[in-house]
Amino acid sequence: MSLRVGVVGASGYTGAELLRLLAVHPGVEPVVATSREFAGRDIASVYPNLTLYAGRPYDELDMDKLTALDLVFLALPHGASMELGAKLAAAGTRVVDLSADFRLSDPDAYPQWFGAAHTAPEWLGKWAYGLPELHREEIKGHQAVANPGCYPTAALLALAPLVAENLIEPETIVVTAASGVSGAGRNANPGVHFSHVDANYKAYTPTGHKHTPEIEQELSRLSGTDVRITFVPHLVPMARGLLATCVAQMADGAGAEQVAGAMTARYASEPFVRVSASPPETKYTAGSNSCHVWATAEERTGRVIAIAAIDNLGKGAAGQAIQNANLMLGLPETLGIPAEGVYP
Amino acid sequence: MSLRVGVVGASGYTGAELLRLLAVHPGVEPVVATSREFAGRDIASVYPNLTLYAGRPYDELDMDKLTALDLVFLALPHGASMELGAKLAAAGTRVVDLSADFRLSDPDAYPQWFGAAHTAPEWLGKWAYGLPELHREEIKGHQAVANPGCYPTAALLALAPLVAENLIEPETIVVTAASGVSGAGRNANPGVHFSHVDANYKAYTPTGHKHTPEIEQELSRLSGTDVRITFVPHLVPMARGLLATCVAQMADGAGAEQVAGAMTARYASEPFVRVSASPPETKYTAGSNSCHVWATAEERTGRVIAIAAIDNLGKGAAGQAIQNANLMLGLPETLGIPAEGVYP
Amino acid sequence: MSLRVGVVGASGYTGAELLRLLAVHPGVEPVVATSREFAGRDIASVYPNLTLYAGRPYDELDMDKLTALDLVFLALPHGASMELGAKLAAAGTRVVDLSADFRLSDPDAYPQWFGAAHTAPEWLGKWAYGLPELHREEIKGHQAVANPGCYPTAALLALAPLVAENLIEPETIVVTAASGVSGAGRNANPGVHFSHVDANYKAYTPTGHKHTPEIEQELSRLSGTDVRITFVPHLVPMARGLLATCVAQMADGAGAEQVAGAMTARYASEPFVRVSASPPETKYTAGSNSCHVWATAEERTGRVIAIAAIDNLGKGAAGQAIQNANLMLGLPETLGIPAEGVYP
Amino acid sequence: MSLRVGVVGASGYTGAELLRLLAVHPGVEPVVATSREFAGRDIASVYPNLTLYAGRPYDELDMDKLTALDLVFLALPHGASMELGAKLAAAGTRVVDLSADFRLSDPDAYPQWFGAAHTAPEWLGKWAYGLPELHREEIKGHQAVANPGCYPTAALLALAPLVAENLIEPETIVVTAASGVSGAGRNANPGVHFSHVDANYKAYTPTGHKHTPEIEQELSRLSGTDVRITFVPHLVPMARGLLATCVAQMADGAGAEQVAGAMTARYASEPFVRVSASPPETKYTAGSNSCHVWATAEERTGRVIAIAAIDNLGKGAAGQAIQNANLMLGLPETLGIPAEGVYP
Repeated sequence: MSLRVGVVGASGYTGAELLRLLAVHPGVEPVVATSREFAGRDIASVYPNLTLYAGRPYDELDMDKLTALDLVFLALPHGASMELGAKLAAAGTRVVDLSADFRLSDPDAYPQWFGAAHTAPEWLGKWAYGLPELHREEIKGHQAVANPGCYPTAALLALAPLVAENLIEPETIVVTAASGVSGAGRNANPGVHFSHVDANYKAYTPTGHKHTPEIEQELSRLSGTDVRITFVPHLVPMARGLLATCVAQMADGAGAEQVAGAMTARYASEPFVRVSASPPETKYTAGSNSCHVWATAEERTGRVIAIAAIDNLGKGAAGQAIQNANLMLGLPETLGIPAEGVYP
Repeated sequence: MSLRVGVVGASGYTGAELLRLLAVHPGVEPVVATSREFAGRDIASVYPNLTLYAGRPYDELDMDKLTALDLVFLALPHGASMELGAKLAAAGTRVVDLSADFRLSDPDAYPQWFGAAHTAPEWLGKWAYGLPELHREEIKGHQAVANPGCYPTAALLALAPLVAENLIEPETIVVTAASGVSGAGRNANPGVHFSHVDANYKAYTPTGHKHTPEIEQELSRLSGTDVRITFVPHLVPMARGLLATCVAQMADGAGAEQVAGAMTARYASEPFVRVSASPPETKYTAGSNSCHVWATAEERTGRVIAIAAIDNLGKGAAGQAIQNANLMLGLPETLGIPAEGVYP
Repeated sequence: MSLRVGVVGASGYTGAELLRLLAVHPGVEPVVATSREFAGRDIASVYPNLTLYAGRPYDELDMDKLTALDLVFLALPHGASMELGAKLAAAGTRVVDLSADFRLSDPDAYPQWFGAAHTAPEWLGKWAYGLPELHREEIKGHQAVANPGCYPTAALLALAPLVAENLIEPETIVVTAASGVSGAGRNANPGVHFSHVDANYKAYTPTGHKHTPEIEQELSRLSGTDVRITFVPHLVPMARGLLATCVAQMADGAGAEQVAGAMTARYASEPFVRVSASPPETKYTAGSNSCHVWATAEERTGRVIAIAAIDNLGKGAAGQAIQNANLMLGLPETLGIPAEGVYP
Repeated sequence: MSLRVGVVGASGYTGAELLRLLAVHPGVEPVVATSREFAGRDIASVYPNLTLYAGRPYDELDMDKLTALDLVFLALPHGASMELGAKLAAAGTRVVDLSADFRLSDPDAYPQWFGAAHTAPEWLGKWAYGLPELHREEIKGHQAVANPGCYPTAALLALAPLVAENLIEPETIVVTAASGVSGAGRNANPGVHFSHVDANYKAYTPTGHKHTPEIEQELSRLSGTDVRITFVPHLVPMARGLLATCVAQMADGAGAEQVAGAMTARYASEPFVRVSASPPETKYTAGSNSCHVWATAEERTGRVIAIAAIDNLGKGAAGQAIQNANLMLGLPETLGIPAEGVYP
């Protein structure tokens, strides 16, 4: 018998991706799918790709229904999850929040980066940070899990083996990354107009992206030092896909062999992380929960280059959320999650 | 226990798409995957998206191994399936051929459109034409099925209800269609160079496309007359997706109501065809086996416009091939076939 | 000494394209560039590509300034040109209107297709239809010219030689066409969201596009009969470019030779129309005022296929408007207008 | 009277872009356009966008004709210019070489990065490095100019003001950059197949790109130290456009004000470099010779981020080559060179 789950905010891109994946998940059933904007409207009329939902309307948000579920996914915009997340956590309902609201454990960091006070600061630090490759056991035991951001997922999977093995100097890390446009969400605005974005490439928020503190938090945990990074995200004219290119000074005693070895060792038994033979390409991960990583040492400059590719809506959002849910619910970790990218 | 199937030509785009879908198909297991070019090489090194095949090499073609299987998919170029298809059919092995080699039943049509003699003409007309929405029962009883072309699949699903119900004049049908670039296959050439195709749109083979006789054959069967159509395909700067826009003179006595009604009635219980509320868009079908159709009557001109959207590698190739295989093997028709498109 | 011209609505895509071209036009100087939304703001801050306008703000609309100019381009949305166009025409100011407001001469056609009454019906039929290849002499002698729509420009240039020479049956014409997204204008909405449009293809307004009556009007003039066409436009995931694919029944006595000959003869001395050796591709016209046309007879079906490619913002809008302006101002017709497309 | 110039290798992308620009250049006339592959074939049949060349065939290479010209552009692949460039330089013919063959002055650097010996090492260091913003006066006085690579052009224009003013630590510079696909040239191969590149993003040659020594050479000249950088190029699914994102440690005493001030001061009177108000976007430079630059100080990390956007075929190749030619020929520097990008 399937477990009963709900998706709150199921008309955004990540919510719709959750519905797509959950429709064929053999272990859970999406019995609630809310949308403030489209409540009452046929899901398949808003997302005609979701043919399996034809005839089923979006639900209104109903707290009683949510707390009766085995697990709730919150796919709301940043800031909008705080209140509901805190309520569900307090009610003892299992919850995976895909927003940034519960990812930071330092209560000072939230207002600094998000420009507003957190309304449920008592919960900060009590949610697990849902990157299974770093916190699998913690996630299994938690009722409330904060699903990582798309950029942090890629950057951390590229850097974690190197930082954990002390192969790079953490304070020298520079992350330049690039994402497809779906990362900016479903709302139309001049910045996502096709005629503007197509055949265009740019950096954006080069010094203040909200994913920065999240990357720093996890790198600091891994290294035991207070890490500050430069993080410059870019926008690529494609709908899905995200690549993080990380450069750092090699640590004393490290070399090419250690760098390659650390990646291989770390991910040998990870179901969704694959160490690729050459710099990874985003397209091979499209529609999947896979992450392809690669790293090398540049002896000439004494630097290390580490790169990770994901689908920002897959391992960067909905896929990883279901991976977390499987862990929390005691299901096989890979159940119902596509590992194969849709190519070409 | 899973049935054992093989994919011959598993390093082309349609072959790789078959592998992607078969990897998670609960009823069959792809135990053979041949490639002349890549035999012996790790499948996941050629297609890094196929992570589930990591560590498994492409096979050499071995006739004995093929005839021992429950079913063989042939994903070879046009012309290259003839000999092998005939052998497998003669051996009594179930076979789904994704090329054009066994689609035409008229022995004169093949050389006329393909510019070469057919080497196994005795088999023409003995394979079922694998469009389940038209020939489901015939497919179930056949050992050898010719999987339709991508353009014919879309054009026929758009037109079949109208021709069958005598709502349009078959001799006036004009089909203009457009496909993503993956339809041209995996081989590099100037015509598929990114710098040339991107931000470009054109018609190609406007009077001689090889899918023309296939559309005419099936429309002739449906109408009981000898139908000749104009078929003008176009190339769209996208990897996947195919749209057929069909225009024809309305028949006497037909009208808007009958047109809409015929579509709805025909496809009400089809698992992979959905009559959409507005002109369909290819993107909603990406990665899936779904077809979205729509038709209207233009009273002002006395014409009917019927449109169908598919993924050329899904319902237009690999998805439909598995649908046919399910029917031939006595499995549930929809087993292991994605109906949900990957969007956005 | 340069003539003085103005662009009203210079912050839309066609207005900005006019500014781009006029900046280096050796015969005219764009001394006025109005924008309701951006008046007072640096043009180069709104369109950073227009570096030559750095430091120059958008103007408010000032009727006195406009009537003092040698010519005014109106690059306003449909419906918004009526009043201003009528005033400028009444004032004797030379005006090229890029909207649809003055293209139709039949006063009944406007409300039928645009769903609203025309506020200056007395001017309908008094503006020249600004397709120089059909109406060059009329344009030279007119003070007020209605610049054709992008689809009509392509469809008419493809069909005019065939209709004029009675090589096709006008009542059988079916035009399926496809445009890049810039044709939908600068305003952001869900339909032009990159994540939705990219890797997508669809038909839109398949029976009611506002360019239909304009094509019919000009074909009727050419044929001397009352022509009604089916016109199905499509959206292509590219910013610029437009292709019209026209199919019609061949007339008695016509054939392949006549079809090819009619195209060549008609356009032999046209500076911006080139009969191509194979079906034209939109990309070769990008950024230019060129139109590439091609036609063939399909003997098998007795039909003719005629195709034209343009840049919807070039020959389909701003380029053609300047071509008209050159004619009206007595300048060399090709002065300052790019014929070379930006490729790749 | 126009000066007479030639383009050797006029059927590659940069050669064709030279032809496009030279066709309307008021000061020079492209009287020679050679192509080994297409000699004798109509230029406009190979590049249908080049309508002004219709009826004119590609030339065979004829040394006597070249030395009789006022200037020769060499648009050949790396390695193929060496011999011809040396001959033309020896003959005293003005020459602009768009390959990498004469950019490096250190004879040891060429074999190290290009994996082959230089066949005319005596000329290394005797050609001017054709970045007018750094070497304008030297270019004016030279007969032989090595046109910079696309990546070096962007990286150097972003970094030069900061290095020259000692605002960053040169040995900490990390350049991650991204280019459109036309940078890979016209030849078809699997890596530029549309179906592979579209909706894809990746790094390539992350430690060994051939433009690295060129950037290091010029930064070393500017700083007076031996600079080694990490340079990681990426491929973006677009035909044109290039962005260099440069990160370096701020120097002691530097700050946000100095960084912004250095950029503005350096480029105040440069005709083709514009300091933008926000991170630049490649699309605004498409088809033009403009470079948009931007820099900021990240106080939090003590780093500087400097970004430059160009069209890789414009300021990154053909546009800059004509800028150099204008300087060498004593023509106005901006003559015949588009500053306005084609947008959208």
